[in-house]
Amino acid sequence: MPGNSFGEAFRFTTWGESHGPGIGCVIDGVPPRLPLSEADIQTYLDRRRPGQSKYTTQRKEPDAVRIVSGTFEGLTTGTPIALAIDNVDQRSKDYGDIKDKFRPAHADYTYWRKYGIRDYRGGGRSSARETAMRVAAGAIARKVLGNTISIRGAMVQMGPHAIDRENWDWAQIDENPFWCPDASAAAAWAEELEGLRKAGNSVGAVIEVVGQGVPAGLGEPVYGKLDSDLARAMMTINAVKGVEIGDGFAAAAATGLDAADEMRKGDGPDAPEFLSNHAGGVLGGISSGQDIVVRFAVKPTSSILAERRTIDIHGNETEISTKGRHDPCVGIRAVPVGEAMMACVLADHLLRHRGQTGS
Amino acid sequence: MPGNSFGEAFRFTTWGESHGPGIGCVIDGVPPRLPLSEADIQTYLDRRRPGQSKYTTQRKEPDAVRIVSGTFEGLTTGTPIALAIDNVDQRSKDYGDIKDKFRPAHADYTYWRKYGIRDYRGGGRSSARETAMRVAAGAIARKVLGNTISIRGAMVQMGPHAIDRENWDWAQIDENPFWCPDASAAAAWAEELEGLRKAGNSVGAVIEVVGQGVPAGLGEPVYGKLDSDLARAMMTINAVKGVEIGDGFAAAAATGLDAADEMRKGDGPDAPEFLSNHAGGVLGGISSGQDIVVRFAVKPTSSILAERRTIDIHGNETEISTKGRHDPCVGIRAVPVGEAMMACVLADHLLRHRGQTGS
Amino acid sequence: MPGNSFGEAFRFTTWGESHGPGIGCVIDGVPPRLPLSEADIQTYLDRRRPGQSKYTTQRKEPDAVRIVSGTFEGLTTGTPIALAIDNVDQRSKDYGDIKDKFRPAHADYTYWRKYGIRDYRGGGRSSARETAMRVAAGAIARKVLGNTISIRGAMVQMGPHAIDRENWDWAQIDENPFWCPDASAAAAWAEELEGLRKAGNSVGAVIEVVGQGVPAGLGEPVYGKLDSDLARAMMTINAVKGVEIGDGFAAAAATGLDAADEMRKGDGPDAPEFLSNHAGGVLGGISSGQDIVVRFAVKPTSSILAERRTIDIHGNETEISTKGRHDPCVGIRAVPVGEAMMACVLADHLLRHRGQTGS
Amino acid sequence: MPGNSFGEAFRFTTWGESHGPGIGCVIDGVPPRLPLSEADIQTYLDRRRPGQSKYTTQRKEPDAVRIVSGTFEGLTTGTPIALAIDNVDQRSKDYGDIKDKFRPAHADYTYWRKYGIRDYRGGGRSSARETAMRVAAGAIARKVLGNTISIRGAMVQMGPHAIDRENWDWAQIDENPFWCPDASAAAAWAEELEGLRKAGNSVGAVIEVVGQGVPAGLGEPVYGKLDSDLARAMMTINAVKGVEIGDGFAAAAATGLDAADEMRKGDGPDAPEFLSNHAGGVLGGISSGQDIVVRFAVKPTSSILAERRTIDIHGNETEISTKGRHDPCVGIRAVPVGEAMMACVLADHLLRHRGQTGS
Repeated sequence: MPGNSFGEAFRFTTWGESHGPGIGCVIDGVPPRLPLSEADIQTYLDRRRPGQSKYTTQRKEPDAVRIVSGTFEGLTTGTPIALAIDNVDQRSKDYGDIKDKFRPAHADYTYWRKYGIRDYRGGGRSSARETAMRVAAGAIARKVLGNTISIRGAMVQMGPHAIDRENWDWAQIDENPFWCPDASAAAAWAEELEGLRKAGNSVGAVIEVVGQGVPAGLGEPVYGKLDSDLARAMMTINAVKGVEIGDGFAAAAATGLDAADEMRKGDGPDAPEFLSNHAGGVLGGISSGQDIVVRFAVKPTSSILAERRTIDIHGNETEISTKGRHDPCVGIRAVPVGEAMMACVLADHLLRHRGQTGS
Repeated sequence: MPGNSFGEAFRFTTWGESHGPGIGCVIDGVPPRLPLSEADIQTYLDRRRPGQSKYTTQRKEPDAVRIVSGTFEGLTTGTPIALAIDNVDQRSKDYGDIKDKFRPAHADYTYWRKYGIRDYRGGGRSSARETAMRVAAGAIARKVLGNTISIRGAMVQMGPHAIDRENWDWAQIDENPFWCPDASAAAAWAEELEGLRKAGNSVGAVIEVVGQGVPAGLGEPVYGKLDSDLARAMMTINAVKGVEIGDGFAAAAATGLDAADEMRKGDGPDAPEFLSNHAGGVLGGISSGQDIVVRFAVKPTSSILAERRTIDIHGNETEISTKGRHDPCVGIRAVPVGEAMMACVLADHLLRHRGQTGS
Repeated sequence: MPGNSFGEAFRFTTWGESHGPGIGCVIDGVPPRLPLSEADIQTYLDRRRPGQSKYTTQRKEPDAVRIVSGTFEGLTTGTPIALAIDNVDQRSKDYGDIKDKFRPAHADYTYWRKYGIRDYRGGGRSSARETAMRVAAGAIARKVLGNTISIRGAMVQMGPHAIDRENWDWAQIDENPFWCPDASAAAAWAEELEGLRKAGNSVGAVIEVVGQGVPAGLGEPVYGKLDSDLARAMMTINAVKGVEIGDGFAAAAATGLDAADEMRKGDGPDAPEFLSNHAGGVLGGISSGQDIVVRFAVKPTSSILAERRTIDIHGNETEISTKGRHDPCVGIRAVPVGEAMMACVLADHLLRHRGQTGS
Repeated sequence: MPGNSFGEAFRFTTWGESHGPGIGCVIDGVPPRLPLSEADIQTYLDRRRPGQSKYTTQRKEPDAVRIVSGTFEGLTTGTPIALAIDNVDQRSKDYGDIKDKFRPAHADYTYWRKYGIRDYRGGGRSSARETAMRVAAGAIARKVLGNTISIRGAMVQMGPHAIDRENWDWAQIDENPFWCPDASAAAAWAEELEGLRKAGNSVGAVIEVVGQGVPAGLGEPVYGKLDSDLARAMMTINAVKGVEIGDGFAAAAATGLDAADEMRKGDGPDAPEFLSNHAGGVLGGISSGQDIVVRFAVKPTSSILAERRTIDIHGNETEISTKGRHDPCVGIRAVPVGEAMMACVLADHLLRHRGQTGS
């Protein structure tokens, strides 16, 4: 019941703070005899790692992951897999300012109110550093899902600027620092973000994650629906304020005549052809075999140069600005995190479905 | 782990199908000695009940709830509260058409693929009839929350037509069949919806639910965040395709300069004044004491008069149209359901917070 | 987290009090397409039903079970199965005496202290009547387990009188009112119990439940061990004060030389022959393929004719005796309940094991 | 749902193998602002540590615990507490013999059957080394319980030799290597165990754990009863084969006349005097305020010098004996583990009770 675990059958628990000795997680329920090495996980961590472009925080964290239990001779054993990453770049700086002041739009005030104590160094437990462990868990989830299921994320909007979906090219996402599938949008974003970065400002983003090859039948109606678990998963990512499946909020504006995904005969009885995918691959909370399409909105980084009005822990009015290393668009680093969360949700439901139905 | 329960400390489990003998739920973890009568619950059920205007299905269900355990002499005992509602209007009709055909955008196909069997009568378990039990559980959750917390929902968009938020007046929501807080929007919607209804078509909607008086400190970071549990909760409601907190997707277009909710001294150390509420009352997954603001998008009813292309359980191509009693805008009835789900999430977190912190 | 559910993948939740309108349960996670009728469940309920001999309470409850959701055309659908039994013999009697007094060795005092309120009529929620629903859930668990797994219980000790295990004959358990596998012990018990009954006294018992045909591999080390879940399961049964697996407490007196269950080649690589079964079929928390052997101790019925000293809810000293209909040996009715709990634990672990390992 | 977590509100998850890099655990749900240092935990670990007398394995493990998250400036923060201990004495030895052979009465065969793979080095995950982390979690649970609740364990039987309860003196448990409260029994055991040790044999034991000062009201009927959770907890400890509460199995031999714990007026309305404690402090699954008394049986160490018949992973018949460092009576080291498990169960229920009832 406490909040630091995710999933039911494929279940991970994370621990660690931004400026403590390290971060880690325990993944329980992983099927046995899956090949798993540190390199398998490191690949995904490297995609999320900060400091890879001028648009992400310049904190230098190698994020070298160690597997400390749960594998034997290169295979998972079915017992808990524990992972650990040491924190190596906790710059010894003066925390005097944020020690007593609540940074607006951060978790400072609410942690204080909930717990009556907070580790103010770098946000402590509320730091986005925690998401490295989601990416690590996601790498293992992908092993559970196998090679026929692919999960890819892309940034589809930066600030008010959405991509042109006609230009969508998955190959582009590795060609720019935004995971942007639209080359021309990426170029425009680069210019815009550079301006915001220099001004000490920040901007929000929309991320889209697509799961392909997901079999029909995953999801536990009515409270463990695949889409409700995906919504929960994405909303647990730092700074996320909205989630949608398929047409999402656009569905509110549609009529029933338009919204139905009609069906035709496909390549066999278990693979009909859908003539559209307004539903985003989930009907009644269960996967349909179509692509799973999830989008989520990330608010702009709250740590900005400009002074904002706030109060301190004694209730006094004051101002605060953030001088440290920060991302002008945290949405960028949310892309691999969103992929990881989808992988974990799907792995969880794959095992749950197999448990109940045997298939 | 199976999917029919919701909540951790305040936990409810629902059962029942559209055309079976009845529906019900068991609510476990309710604090003892709360006054509770059937009338307390019936009040909320009556708000959701179908057949109250020409815009909701004409199925006549009195939805009379019975408390069958968990109270004694008008008070809760701390043991499980069981509720039951008999199904009385399962019109004996010919199910020949939907028996073998998959209705597009419904759960027919996915239940079939998941379970290899489905109760096709009225959608069986996937029917929105199940949501009556959420409303019932929500009525009890409100008792747990007490009188200082209020939870109200409103329809803020029907099809492409959003309300004018300047006109927001909570008193209006009981004055029109849409729970619409903008009287002029309600009038326009009435006309529009009548046209869609006559055409056998349907339309989507956006619902907003607001929790007021919620104390700071509720929520379990990082995977049991208050907003992620709210997102999950709303996404479990039938036909919901998107959820947002506070500014939601609009936050993606904002800059950090604009998005911060600045703070000033308020009425005491535990009640600062926030100068805005972009966050929707949740920071770092924990309530801030501001209003909790959640919106969700409901897709248009999938059951429409027009013929849509589909396949049958044998894989043959065919067409289907829905002739029965249906809602041209299911979003209307989703309003009390959304309120109930917020109440249940808040009650759950209130008990969890009290357990961990003692306050 | 609240206490009225059992199991993870095969999960049931019970509700109801002794003298309320009825009792019921919801079973979630049941695999789809299993044949299931009310008669399948009633068979097991009839074995537990009170009033079948002079050694069980004379309360007349037909305990006729109704399936109110989760099946369709005689098959399970994979959605929650809800069961209900009406209470028909809540004799309208004067509760004056137990209303305010705490019956020693009953749950009266502790419910009062925990909840500050209690339904004193017949014990309310703490009544053994609740166990009828375990038996019903167990009947469905047996469906999940299939025909190759058998679960049978026997009473192996009444008061200080243990059976002679040399006389063990499963066929005898249906030939006497004690589920006693030793015909000569049963005869002696009958005489002894008749004396206790007439004296208004009661006696304890030891029950043994044996699962045969259970495949190797079930159990989740280290905190969801098969034997720890069985221990928990049996200890939840009313009046149970001890549980043991295999040799149990006798193992404490043994040496390592004696306690090992040596292994020889059996009928194939997956079926070795064990030369003994001191372990009771569980090693390291995982089933070995041998018989699962569990015993539990039931204390004597606390409701007896003799006056016992107690206090009332106001703290005053007083005396109480119980005049109603009661079992001189509640252990008798615990036999089918113990069988049911083992069935539920095994079904749960069968589904969990299949989920993780695919086999 | 996977098996490596324990508890609901106070929840810990352990990881690690006997001969991997280390072991650890994550404890979630701990109340904030409790003083906690590594020394607080180390005290209890030192009591369990092997190699302290000739009666426990000579493996030299300093078991130095590190707190790697969840505290700040000496106080708990309410976020997950992660603990780690490095394995330093994994003697590089030849595992040739146990690599392919199943040691009787060990988990070798069942892990193999469940997972199709096993880390055979020192038992891997099934090693009693895991219990160090329970002791660490228990130290934190004691902080949650506070100073008015004390939990102490004692060995009350070694092999067939029980203590004389008339001699019970808690002060003695620190005076002998057996945690034995009866000085004369301890002396006799020492002689006996020395003989068994030299013969390469081993022996079982019975441990008793007593919780004093536990408030009335803890426990969640009917499936989260305090005693059923205690039974589960103790049964998860390696080599435990039986658990009993209060009179336990002796209750089966009693009559109702004898078994009732009569009540008299005590020191105030909330503190009656009980005239006996047959129930072991739990009635109807809820604590009564009396001492919580739990006993559990530990089987003799399965690793002995004598050759035992077994099979190997290829199904061939063979023999095996264990030459390594092992405990002639693993029951000794189970004493602090049993204490820790009781502390964790009580802390969990304390938080759960406070959540539901507010007190």
